[in-house]
Amino acid sequence: MDLKSLIRDIPDFPKSGIIFRDITTLLSNSAGLKYTVDSLTQKCQALNLNPDYIVGMESRGFIFGPPLAYQLNAGFIPVRKPGKLPAAVHTIEYELEYGTDSLEIHQDALDHGAKVLIVDDLIATGGTAKATAELLEKIGSQVLGFAFVIELTALEGRKKLPNLPVISLVEY
Amino acid sequence: MDLKSLIRDIPDFPKSGIIFRDITTLLSNSAGLKYTVDSLTQKCQALNLNPDYIVGMESRGFIFGPPLAYQLNAGFIPVRKPGKLPAAVHTIEYELEYGTDSLEIHQDALDHGAKVLIVDDLIATGGTAKATAELLEKIGSQVLGFAFVIELTALEGRKKLPNLPVISLVEY
Repeated sequence: MDLKSLIRDIPDFPKSGIIFRDITTLLSNSAGLKYTVDSLTQKCQALNLNPDYIVGMESRGFIFGPPLAYQLNAGFIPVRKPGKLPAAVHTIEYELEYGTDSLEIHQDALDHGAKVLIVDDLIATGGTAKATAELLEKIGSQVLGFAFVIELTALEGRKKLPNLPVISLVEY
Repeated sequence: MDLKSLIRDIPDFPKSGIIFRDITTLLSNSAGLKYTVDSLTQKCQALNLNPDYIVGMESRGFIFGPPLAYQLNAGFIPVRKPGKLPAAVHTIEYELEYGTDSLEIHQDALDHGAKVLIVDDLIATGGTAKATAELLEKIGSQVLGFAFVIELTALEGRKKLPNLPVISLVEY
């Protein structure tokens, strides 16, 4: 299946000069959604990645993480924006193009040494995924790798990540 | 499976006097996540609900919507907070306990007359689900019903909804 044909280009969003890769047209296509989840699942299995948990970042990581967790018989752990998680958290601040942002994870989200796969819809500069991996190290987990639906290769985000498997389905 | 045993009570979150029902402990349990998705699927099938699309509200509706869509061979459509969706949207404003909030949907998210099921993690007063149903009517869809993991029955949220099937798995 040609996933790229289901992803819509929106010029000048969120700001002038940026082409936004809109996955809502992929998600709303039932065959496309199923193919995306199955492809991520198969690529994990081909690499013998058997995570105890899938970790997904708010908000679009919440869309692909849980169905992949279901298929891989893993649990799902959300990484959220500040103030959203109700129990004690670890926080990490990371740099954006302008300014900084923060992500949080529950301190007791997983057992020490648990194996995790980090999932998001898209990797651009890799800042969010890198910050999430660092957050997971703080709570003693073992990051097995990363999986994305879309990779913006020109931004070389995967170079910023630890030397681990990085799965992506569609490259721009 | 006793789903309630996997849901954690957090007193005084997000403010004093509120008991927050924390689903992160359910999500991280692989068997609990699978059982939740399978139970929602089976209840839809038992009611002969065959949606073309599952609609989920940002952010926690994004967690349960896509795996349910996968199981029911439906597409997934996100309803988001203002400014997040990249193409032309319809917006609805709805009342909170203090003040108002808004939700948006892509104007071209679905074909006129398409059948949808609205999914969220929890129904409290029902304000968000009601607003989402109204948003879906604006784009000409046929709402078949609602599905929630948790229902806070004392708040009588389902009374605020249209007279359609309302599924919930755990009641408080």
